[in-house]
Amino acid sequence: MPLSPEQQSEIDAQRAETRPTRRVVSEGMEGHLYTAYPVLDHGFVRVVDYMGDDAAITQAARVSYGKGTKSVQNDEGLIRYLMRHWHSTPFEMCEVKLHVKLPVFVARQWIRHRTANVNEYSARYSILDREFYIPAPEHLAAQSVVNNQGRGEALEGEEAERVLRYLRDDAMRAYDHYEEMIGQDGQQGLARELARMNLPANIYTQWYWKVDLHNLLHFLRLRADAHAQYEIRVYAEELCKIVADWVPFAYKAFEDYRMGGATLSSGALDCVRRMIKGEEVTQENSGMSKGEWREFEAALKG
Amino acid sequence: MPLSPEQQSEIDAQRAETRPTRRVVSEGMEGHLYTAYPVLDHGFVRVVDYMGDDAAITQAARVSYGKGTKSVQNDEGLIRYLMRHWHSTPFEMCEVKLHVKLPVFVARQWIRHRTANVNEYSARYSILDREFYIPAPEHLAAQSVVNNQGRGEALEGEEAERVLRYLRDDAMRAYDHYEEMIGQDGQQGLARELARMNLPANIYTQWYWKVDLHNLLHFLRLRADAHAQYEIRVYAEELCKIVADWVPFAYKAFEDYRMGGATLSSGALDCVRRMIKGEEVTQENSGMSKGEWREFEAALKG
Amino acid sequence: MPLSPEQQSEIDAQRAETRPTRRVVSEGMEGHLYTAYPVLDHGFVRVVDYMGDDAAITQAARVSYGKGTKSVQNDEGLIRYLMRHWHSTPFEMCEVKLHVKLPVFVARQWIRHRTANVNEYSARYSILDREFYIPAPEHLAAQSVVNNQGRGEALEGEEAERVLRYLRDDAMRAYDHYEEMIGQDGQQGLARELARMNLPANIYTQWYWKVDLHNLLHFLRLRADAHAQYEIRVYAEELCKIVADWVPFAYKAFEDYRMGGATLSSGALDCVRRMIKGEEVTQENSGMSKGEWREFEAALKG
Amino acid sequence: MPLSPEQQSEIDAQRAETRPTRRVVSEGMEGHLYTAYPVLDHGFVRVVDYMGDDAAITQAARVSYGKGTKSVQNDEGLIRYLMRHWHSTPFEMCEVKLHVKLPVFVARQWIRHRTANVNEYSARYSILDREFYIPAPEHLAAQSVVNNQGRGEALEGEEAERVLRYLRDDAMRAYDHYEEMIGQDGQQGLARELARMNLPANIYTQWYWKVDLHNLLHFLRLRADAHAQYEIRVYAEELCKIVADWVPFAYKAFEDYRMGGATLSSGALDCVRRMIKGEEVTQENSGMSKGEWREFEAALKG
Repeated sequence: MPLSPEQQSEIDAQRAETRPTRRVVSEGMEGHLYTAYPVLDHGFVRVVDYMGDDAAITQAARVSYGKGTKSVQNDEGLIRYLMRHWHSTPFEMCEVKLHVKLPVFVARQWIRHRTANVNEYSARYSILDREFYIPAPEHLAAQSVVNNQGRGEALEGEEAERVLRYLRDDAMRAYDHYEEMIGQDGQQGLARELARMNLPANIYTQWYWKVDLHNLLHFLRLRADAHAQYEIRVYAEELCKIVADWVPFAYKAFEDYRMGGATLSSGALDCVRRMIKGEEVTQENSGMSKGEWREFEAALKG
Repeated sequence: MPLSPEQQSEIDAQRAETRPTRRVVSEGMEGHLYTAYPVLDHGFVRVVDYMGDDAAITQAARVSYGKGTKSVQNDEGLIRYLMRHWHSTPFEMCEVKLHVKLPVFVARQWIRHRTANVNEYSARYSILDREFYIPAPEHLAAQSVVNNQGRGEALEGEEAERVLRYLRDDAMRAYDHYEEMIGQDGQQGLARELARMNLPANIYTQWYWKVDLHNLLHFLRLRADAHAQYEIRVYAEELCKIVADWVPFAYKAFEDYRMGGATLSSGALDCVRRMIKGEEVTQENSGMSKGEWREFEAALKG
Repeated sequence: MPLSPEQQSEIDAQRAETRPTRRVVSEGMEGHLYTAYPVLDHGFVRVVDYMGDDAAITQAARVSYGKGTKSVQNDEGLIRYLMRHWHSTPFEMCEVKLHVKLPVFVARQWIRHRTANVNEYSARYSILDREFYIPAPEHLAAQSVVNNQGRGEALEGEEAERVLRYLRDDAMRAYDHYEEMIGQDGQQGLARELARMNLPANIYTQWYWKVDLHNLLHFLRLRADAHAQYEIRVYAEELCKIVADWVPFAYKAFEDYRMGGATLSSGALDCVRRMIKGEEVTQENSGMSKGEWREFEAALKG
Repeated sequence: MPLSPEQQSEIDAQRAETRPTRRVVSEGMEGHLYTAYPVLDHGFVRVVDYMGDDAAITQAARVSYGKGTKSVQNDEGLIRYLMRHWHSTPFEMCEVKLHVKLPVFVARQWIRHRTANVNEYSARYSILDREFYIPAPEHLAAQSVVNNQGRGEALEGEEAERVLRYLRDDAMRAYDHYEEMIGQDGQQGLARELARMNLPANIYTQWYWKVDLHNLLHFLRLRADAHAQYEIRVYAEELCKIVADWVPFAYKAFEDYRMGGATLSSGALDCVRRMIKGEEVTQENSGMSKGEWREFEAALKG
């Protein structure tokens, strides 16, 4: 259960209240505001604040005095043009602030995206909760045999059970000792900043993460991708749904030109030209390495 | 006159309309929203959007579920603590988007602050307006005789008149030629991206500039300072007033710890200790260079 | 002439001297070091320092203890893999510092690349030189009739002559007045920080610009592109030659996957699939807008 | 033991070899290059590459053609001026690349410094080593009773022994299970990217970290400070020694104006003025909070 009743009621209270503002409002985003969408077994993402909407992108691109909307149709066309031509600055004019609860090993990947603002729950000041990510059985994947970085089939039978037992028992024992070490009943009590080192990487942490739309889309391109680790991908996928409601034109352009598109090398473009002419192109006569050819075939299959 | 009647009415229309939002609202900032505050002879700053308020700073510092306010008093104390101890990330949780009209030579200083988002009016696509900054007579300053970077007294008499005539006439002539070169009546017409090179650095440009509060305060510390060039300082001073209404606790802490404070070196601290003990400290026995001593004396005078 | 004899002899002196270092050395880059390569009529680029080589990219990708080279072949394969899969951080491990002399209107485009370090010649402290960019006749382009941002044919005849005369005369007059205004002979002398505002955007400035390889390649992708303004493109093209000698594997991968490649949208990939099957695809049945179709055709033509 | 014999011999081989370069060379830094300086029980820092020296700072500040040194004395004076007046860009012209081995909980603090380049050893691809940070008994500190974030006295007796036993045993058990889970002998073998989640935060990781001098000094100001957690402070202190040899003038200015200096608020400056006049100032009549007064007294004591 990601939220305590107190937390849920604080969120409900915030959602219940509206105030008048002169700012642009994204109706799609207002619907999501504050709601904690569950991710993994104890995690969530929730939007805490946002700035801008689709029209704010074109308003900035035009440096205009008013709302920035000449017509809805023009706005969409301009947004698609900006996305196609890698104009990043207009997309930076929208901003979102999230509250995320996530396992530490996911946080360690996430934080590599540097152009963002972060405030993380401090384990120097505060005591961490007894909450650990334990994969669902179907996500308990074996190491891929074709790819150093990937996952294969789910573990089965006794092996799966043993792994789950290790993950659960080690986490519980580590947390028992953490609690005992920082306890001050009849002892000095170890400093929190030291005791936390005993906790494994599947413990949950949380943070406020604020990012502009351009950098968020870059994050989503890498992390909602099939090659991303499952445990961060589910966060990215949840965010995709939110962004689609927040800035529908920008998200659609992102889907078409980034997520669903592919970058072909000069050699790959050359192969495409030969194939359109009817030539049979194989990896051997393509000039591409095996790895690149495999990716090229996948892009053409879609 | 910085705004055309059409622009003013677009702004008025935006100010007249409010919509309900679930987001936090800064009443102080809502009052400023969209209004173009005049700066210099044709420039302005106006807030186009904002995110967050004082409570958003402490909410992020605490990574809290609800509004982030335990009590107003606690919030102010925490904000002062964060400012004093150079905690930058909670202040990054507020964001503001400005529309600024400013001379090109001011824009060239301003853009050196890199951690911000910018969309500038494009002189490749569009035609610039015939608007140039001409200093008011009292700001037509002579080169400082004590400081390479500074200004001395205002120019007087015939010299002042001649300078103003040069600035005005050269600007008008450059713009006449700009217009003539890009004209397409009976000629090919020079590309806009080339013709603009004839325009002097006092021509006005405009941009959307989006920045978080931490980086904005850093900008204000450097640009609202007495050592900043007058023409950028007046923009910074106008922004100070707006920030004071947006996040009053943060701005007060900024005034006390940054603008009104001073960083003393280890040598300067040593001199302070000697002076408190009643010792007479002079530049000669201070261990400081003349420049540093002058600055030290100024800091003590306040 | 971009360099004075004194400057040239300072550069020659630096080039003549070598010292032993334990750092990795790029022989290709050593050959370029300090040489000022002319760009436009008075500009130049020259490498003032650099860090790393191709092997430094793979060394960081592997977080290795030694030189990072298992074999040259492995290094090239890994670099191509990293480029293809948008791994940016290993390319950030190389760094270059440039000294660039360039017209102000080019500098204003250049500085939009924010992830870099810059020290510009200060017109508040120092007096600018009488050097202005005057386009060669063949680059005196008319405004494009098909593209707001582009250039058409070169101007001809009397129109070309008139434009050149305006550019030259206005620049010389502006500089005469600049000199006269800051002069202190028999007058107070206007502050330099004010007098500079009279100078047009084709005056030359100069700066030290330091950037990592990843961000440099991003700059080159946008600025060595056919859509970039000619006056910045020539700087980018000069830099491309230098980078090709500095990190040959990385540059080759960049050419293949970025410069010579193309990003196809999901819709464009779909058209490619239909074309390979032998279907006749036109803009009308492609689902693409006219602009996107034009770009798609251009990518397929190569 | 932080290095294997193979790693040590790779490092020795690199240290033994020098090659001629035209670049500026910092003799002080050459002496450190590649050497792994031990930190904590298994960690180290070592410089893998660097760019620039003290003269490179002034060269950039002056945007000069040659070496940038007019005289050594001028260079030091200019560097002190730049540091005192918060000019950051000239210090950004020096760059350093480090290889660091450090516990994960230290890495999590370190990475918060975003303006840097990082390549970390990947636990998705690779298998982590069995190396954990176990504090020396004298660093096994109790939670501070006066400060949420601080440490008190070292734990004693049976409590200390028990804590060390927990830390050691839990780490060993977690690693045993990690090894067993990823093993592929007679079982499928869990994906590495999943198995790592069982490992506690005192396991060692390593990365290449590249940063400019300005941002490195900012890191050192915060992390070599008495308020920083001991386990990151020892890394910062080791780096301080290296920087002092690399750019001696810049480091001295940093010590005087940043590390040994103090920022006084407007209220604190006012108290200083009253104290110099001989007035008795106490917390009660100072206008400062208790926390601020305590810090003020500490700054005056030095």
